[in-house]
Amino acid sequence: MSDPSSFSNPEQLITRHLNLHLSVDFPKRVISASSSLTVRCLQDSLTSLILDTKDLTIKRVSVNGQDAKFSLGTSHSFKGTPLEVTLPFPLTRGQEAILEICSETSPKSSALQWLNPEQTAGKIHPYLFSQCQATHCRTIIPCQDTPSVKFTYYCQVSIPKELVALMSALHDGDFPDPSDCKRQIYRFKQNVPIPSYLVALVVGAVEGKKIGPRTTVWTEKELLEASVYEFGETEKMLKYAEDLAGPYVWEKYDLLILPPSFPYGGMENPCLTFVTPTVLAGDRSLASVIAHEISHSWTGNLVTNKTWENFWLNEGHTVYLERRIDGLLYGEQFRQFKALGGWKELQTSVNTFGASNPLTNLVPNLHEVDVDAAFSSVPYEKGFALLFYLEQLLGGPDVFLGFLKAYIQAFSYKAVTTDEWKKFLYSYFKDKAEILNQVDWNGWMHTPGMPPVQPKYDMTLANACIALSNRWLEAKGSDLNSFTAADIKALSSHQQIEFLTLLLLKDPLSVSHVTHMQEVYNFNEVKNSEILFRWLRLCIRAKWEKVIPLALKMATEQGRMKFTRPLYRDLYNFDKARDQAVQTFLKNRSFMHPVTEMLVAKDLHVS
Amino acid sequence: MSDPSSFSNPEQLITRHLNLHLSVDFPKRVISASSSLTVRCLQDSLTSLILDTKDLTIKRVSVNGQDAKFSLGTSHSFKGTPLEVTLPFPLTRGQEAILEICSETSPKSSALQWLNPEQTAGKIHPYLFSQCQATHCRTIIPCQDTPSVKFTYYCQVSIPKELVALMSALHDGDFPDPSDCKRQIYRFKQNVPIPSYLVALVVGAVEGKKIGPRTTVWTEKELLEASVYEFGETEKMLKYAEDLAGPYVWEKYDLLILPPSFPYGGMENPCLTFVTPTVLAGDRSLASVIAHEISHSWTGNLVTNKTWENFWLNEGHTVYLERRIDGLLYGEQFRQFKALGGWKELQTSVNTFGASNPLTNLVPNLHEVDVDAAFSSVPYEKGFALLFYLEQLLGGPDVFLGFLKAYIQAFSYKAVTTDEWKKFLYSYFKDKAEILNQVDWNGWMHTPGMPPVQPKYDMTLANACIALSNRWLEAKGSDLNSFTAADIKALSSHQQIEFLTLLLLKDPLSVSHVTHMQEVYNFNEVKNSEILFRWLRLCIRAKWEKVIPLALKMATEQGRMKFTRPLYRDLYNFDKARDQAVQTFLKNRSFMHPVTEMLVAKDLHVS
Repeated sequence: MSDPSSFSNPEQLITRHLNLHLSVDFPKRVISASSSLTVRCLQDSLTSLILDTKDLTIKRVSVNGQDAKFSLGTSHSFKGTPLEVTLPFPLTRGQEAILEICSETSPKSSALQWLNPEQTAGKIHPYLFSQCQATHCRTIIPCQDTPSVKFTYYCQVSIPKELVALMSALHDGDFPDPSDCKRQIYRFKQNVPIPSYLVALVVGAVEGKKIGPRTTVWTEKELLEASVYEFGETEKMLKYAEDLAGPYVWEKYDLLILPPSFPYGGMENPCLTFVTPTVLAGDRSLASVIAHEISHSWTGNLVTNKTWENFWLNEGHTVYLERRIDGLLYGEQFRQFKALGGWKELQTSVNTFGASNPLTNLVPNLHEVDVDAAFSSVPYEKGFALLFYLEQLLGGPDVFLGFLKAYIQAFSYKAVTTDEWKKFLYSYFKDKAEILNQVDWNGWMHTPGMPPVQPKYDMTLANACIALSNRWLEAKGSDLNSFTAADIKALSSHQQIEFLTLLLLKDPLSVSHVTHMQEVYNFNEVKNSEILFRWLRLCIRAKWEKVIPLALKMATEQGRMKFTRPLYRDLYNFDKARDQAVQTFLKNRSFMHPVTEMLVAKDLHVS
Repeated sequence: MSDPSSFSNPEQLITRHLNLHLSVDFPKRVISASSSLTVRCLQDSLTSLILDTKDLTIKRVSVNGQDAKFSLGTSHSFKGTPLEVTLPFPLTRGQEAILEICSETSPKSSALQWLNPEQTAGKIHPYLFSQCQATHCRTIIPCQDTPSVKFTYYCQVSIPKELVALMSALHDGDFPDPSDCKRQIYRFKQNVPIPSYLVALVVGAVEGKKIGPRTTVWTEKELLEASVYEFGETEKMLKYAEDLAGPYVWEKYDLLILPPSFPYGGMENPCLTFVTPTVLAGDRSLASVIAHEISHSWTGNLVTNKTWENFWLNEGHTVYLERRIDGLLYGEQFRQFKALGGWKELQTSVNTFGASNPLTNLVPNLHEVDVDAAFSSVPYEKGFALLFYLEQLLGGPDVFLGFLKAYIQAFSYKAVTTDEWKKFLYSYFKDKAEILNQVDWNGWMHTPGMPPVQPKYDMTLANACIALSNRWLEAKGSDLNSFTAADIKALSSHQQIEFLTLLLLKDPLSVSHVTHMQEVYNFNEVKNSEILFRWLRLCIRAKWEKVIPLALKMATEQGRMKFTRPLYRDLYNFDKARDQAVQTFLKNRSFMHPVTEMLVAKDLHVS
């Protein structure tokens, strides 16, 4: 199967190693690069090849030291511009060659966010971070920007010497740049083959503190102490993950806590997970993001979806492992509760996209679809629901873990499709083919909307959330006085999230309901961003004007796409907030992460 | 740790891929080769590198298409001749380059046995097979001939069109050689990284028959039918092996049954196990060789000993898995019986080498030692005994299998040392450190002779062998009439092997004992080569002249080193057979496998 999100030709030629020299220019907001790709030819007499690029300037291409002719093709709105290289000599099947490309990024590279000092916690130094998933590596260097191709990499990066560079790799020393005494060269090696979307770079005034035998937390020093506390259970989670999934092969598991405009909760860059600062809840309640990113060390980074249409293989299995870790940390009832919460998240996504939208298929068709625009919790939660359903169908958690371990071992260091996954499932459970044949595969995988079957959940922890949400939904004006602060104190923060999620799935509450809820529960002041986010959505949908400033503040200051986009969308749909939302966005867009900015602009219908 | 058996410099530079073009010239007994090595530099400013060669002619060396200066160093008696290449440009850390070498083998290449048509079953076509383990790949092509370096390979080999080529890889089509209409080019790909000792080639008039979903048996047509029957349980064994060790990643598992001069029982060449025809017992009784070679698909081929000093990591774990498969096929008592048999084999080896010989260490020092000369059952059976002992110490077969699976997953696609193995053992059994600390590690690993502790064995199947052997050992002349053919019919062929092994560990029997044993048991006529071999040794040690011709025939016609060397050695030590042994060897040496010939010549003190 070919990758609809890439112009490259991995069926003819694959990248095996990338040797990279980067120089980061903060004033120009440009990275210049020399990329040496070791490529292996898979066909007879190959005379040309295509790499993905987007907003790159290509200066020179050579093959084994001989200059090669090259040309940029027609630009595509989101896929970028194919770089066609004419080989100076034909390659034969099985032959390898060194393809070297000198290039330069554009300041608008969608993989890179360049932060002014004012956008950092320290306010003194600029900051740069990358986010390549899904299809943005091509905006840093020319590459086969498809997860079907995996390669090792080595990188030397020159940066201003007062800053620190980190990459999704192991630090291999650093030394003064011989060509510029104001700069330092950092070296990194990644000896496990990775797809292009896991190449990652950060340059900033960050500091590190060791919190475990293989973990250092990196962040601006202002956030260091809080981060050290928040992620104190990392080694414990790593050990649980190893018990579940097998040995950890990446050697180091460092954490980088980014500035607030980082667009995701976490990004599983190998050896160095990127984390949003919005998970710094102060009480470790949002650390399951770390359990998730740790789990990606196996499902995603070791076993990789072959195309983004198979993204559920990365995310569904990772959510499954994350919740197994939750279970080991907090008990089986908690795992069941989180599993049910996931079903609600899925329902929310299906409601947002529409139940007949083909992007809610577990395996969507991404031909001519921008992967960023298609992003949602569907691959996470429909994927998890399928695995949780199979766990129950095939004999329970222990039995299913046997499959998961074998799947990881079989496809480690490879890329995998849904068909290969399914074939392996049938071969692992060869004695249970009849049970597997009962599964409505087409309904689960290739049909929009909610899954054909709902798994069963232990309701112990959920019932309190359901009861409280039902009380609010059924409450008449005169009943509101029956609510007290004690209602919410009886619930864990996870249950509070579930309580609000349940309310969001129903018709909007009245303004008097939400104002009363604020009076008794004081959600406006809550530090936990997952609670605050749902609360603000609930208020906006109730058309409570008073929370508009707070919602705008969260949407703008916390760059996490998961919060920003729905908040802006809800504000836009609320007549009295629409103009403010558009104005606020226009005023702040230049400071936003480039992908978030692009997507919110679409949502708000501004160009 | 560096590899004492190689001149190469893997700490500075490693091979990642080999693209090979071979042309096989039967009349000249020469293979000409073009080898393109994709090498990765691991240090700064590398200006030269060393490859292993032995008996090779080097014609040209280039790097990325630029000619490179090269020179051959001083030849070493068994390590060969280092090839030093001066790089035309220095390589930097992380950089890859394509190193191309044109070379030619010598007719005396120790990896290659060239058979005349008369030496084949069909008598019409010549035949060529390779055996690279341990250090013979360097006699085919220049390479980093150390198991610490693993690479993928692609090969195009030109051969006479009436023959068939097979390699330790997947067949990737074949087509007429455009430069010679009498020849055909076969192509092969091996996409799993392998060490050099697993490169393998056979060219001959062989035919294949599919016997399972991933298995074809290849051999001369005269042996095809017998082979198809003998190895009929291969797929069943593969499935058991997968249950024990994890998914089989090599796609195909073909079997090649070689002419009788193949020097080993089996060789685990990936995708294509090489097997001696001496296991064609007609009753599948020697098929555990296949269980052994199948098991190498994980321990050895996927997880590889970093140097030959760590050979027990390959063989001990493989014997352990082999016997687990035996247990699944024939029951736990049979596994226990085979385990005890292994202890006896170890005792035999220790007796042969001498109990204070440092080559009987589990982890021997191979500095200036020829790996072929050091070869014995010690790494197999002392290694197995250690693992079997640990199995009992740590909680039994299920618990220990968990460790083995994790070990395989952790070190898959890598090379491993004994220290890394031990460290992983301690980390896996972190809650059992106190138990592990009771193990006399120095006694097991770095002390000659038998292990410091003997594991426990279920004696059910062994007792009958012990009882019968004791009856023979204690029998006076007048007692001999009490033995009948029924004694031996009551024992399985495995028990008969054990019975003879027990007798071999004691003082020689008298001639009257062995002649009587022949009368009642008729071992001279037995087809099972493992029984016949032990029987003949027993007779020679009893100084029974009548079996000399039979022993010479077996030693000469069955090229398996395990049989040939001890038989020749025993004959040499038997005054009345010595001259015949030397004469027979001198007459037949030119038809023997080159390594066997070299070792037997040493044993017989002929030059």
